[in-house]
Amino acid sequence: MTQQFDQIGIMGVGLIGGAVGLGARSAGLAGRVVGYCRRPEAAREAASVGAVDDCYTEPARAAEGSDLVLLCTGPGTMAGLAAEIADYLPEGAVVTDVASVKSRVVAGCVEALGRKARFVGSHPLAGSEKRGAANSTEIVLADSICVMTPNSSTDPEALEAVRGLWRGLGMETVELSPEEHDARLARTSHVPHLAAAALCALLREGDGPFCATGFRDVTRVAAGDPGMWTEIALSNREALASEMYKLAKRLQGAADLLTAEDREALRQFLEEGAARRREISGGE
Amino acid sequence: MTQQFDQIGIMGVGLIGGAVGLGARSAGLAGRVVGYCRRPEAAREAASVGAVDDCYTEPARAAEGSDLVLLCTGPGTMAGLAAEIADYLPEGAVVTDVASVKSRVVAGCVEALGRKARFVGSHPLAGSEKRGAANSTEIVLADSICVMTPNSSTDPEALEAVRGLWRGLGMETVELSPEEHDARLARTSHVPHLAAAALCALLREGDGPFCATGFRDVTRVAAGDPGMWTEIALSNREALASEMYKLAKRLQGAADLLTAEDREALRQFLEEGAARRREISGGE
Repeated sequence: MTQQFDQIGIMGVGLIGGAVGLGARSAGLAGRVVGYCRRPEAAREAASVGAVDDCYTEPARAAEGSDLVLLCTGPGTMAGLAAEIADYLPEGAVVTDVASVKSRVVAGCVEALGRKARFVGSHPLAGSEKRGAANSTEIVLADSICVMTPNSSTDPEALEAVRGLWRGLGMETVELSPEEHDARLARTSHVPHLAAAALCALLREGDGPFCATGFRDVTRVAAGDPGMWTEIALSNREALASEMYKLAKRLQGAADLLTAEDREALRQFLEEGAARRREISGGE
Repeated sequence: MTQQFDQIGIMGVGLIGGAVGLGARSAGLAGRVVGYCRRPEAAREAASVGAVDDCYTEPARAAEGSDLVLLCTGPGTMAGLAAEIADYLPEGAVVTDVASVKSRVVAGCVEALGRKARFVGSHPLAGSEKRGAANSTEIVLADSICVMTPNSSTDPEALEAVRGLWRGLGMETVELSPEEHDARLARTSHVPHLAAAALCALLREGDGPFCATGFRDVTRVAAGDPGMWTEIALSNREALASEMYKLAKRLQGAADLLTAEDREALRQFLEEGAARRREISGGE
């Protein structure tokens, strides 16, 4: 893999930022990879696991000299961070992000950067319920999908540069509009997360020992960072609320079928779920 | 491990029946392990994977000479099967089962067997979305929990014999009343299954590529046998419907918080889910 960037600046070297840093360094995608972490301990951890060459606790220092900047904080703080670094970016810098929600993040970052940098939204579909750069080696970017969300005002050269980053990390890139991304991810990620949280909250004292593999699989994501997920949920609130109402209605309908002992309709409900699940099983 | 039974008869040598057969044979818990499968191909498969010494396609033949019988079919057919084999069981035989629901199964089997055998309800907390004896090696019984559900009329000697079976397979045994079992399992297994099915049904054309690890984990159980799960759900319909209404209400409440942009309450909702999930994480 040839070097594509002089310097990559990773703003927020946590689980995903760390994984990108490790991958970019090992693939030689940049002359240097630097990072920013708000907390000094996090900055030390990011450098010590080898996710970045150097990690700073001031955003400006990680922005200076970075022709590619990756925003890896929570979606609610990205636009503010973009505004904070705008004046320190080299001319022609390209900025992207890794947020799980796109419409508000893209609009916010484009506005915050103005003419000082070119922004392209990204969402690598990789993650886990864990946190921190120390867990980054568990994240598998290669062969996963990265959704890029250009819109009519996106600079084609910047899009190409960001695509180069993700492909250089072994990812498959797909393009969706920010709005389509948010509608699809509401169903495939955000609703499942809130449903998992709600299932955990149903538990009563003493249920713990009876939570076997099935329960653990269904609810694993619920252990994810509540602060981060509050931001994600609020940033996609319209699409998410709409799908949540549909899910609630569907569950109430299934409960009605149980009460009515409607065997045939209940079986259809379960058949539909099983058929859809098998369609997406792919390599499993 | 010393031999505890002359012959174990496994009625329905599928995923779980097969796992018990493999475990019992390898631990030497019985002089002989025989099985019954309705379909000749299934009977051949059960024998060829070594789950049983011999597999028959008539229930009576697997019952004859079995001092311990294990019912491993769907919960809706167990009482009928018990009635069918009652006259063929040796005197003093003990019968148990592996159903995921207990109140109706225990009542049905006790009535079907009458004075011809002593029944004790069991539910080993092990399983997967797969089917058939050929997948039995993937089932880990050792160190998992088996819930036994005696009631006031359960024979203590029979309870001891059934406990011996599960402990001989390396399982930890726990006792709950059939009703308490069903109430707890509604929350820890049955509701999560129906929620996973409902989440799959929310998907729209083209969402497939955006179903990453999180979605796959949350919905894995939904691929389970719809016929079996229809029986399970109907057999526990009162407890299950009650918890489903609660879940639907909770999801609707979370959607209302999104619409109202109530950040603090939404964060509490997610914090509660994360805290409960971490409590049960144990060795993960």
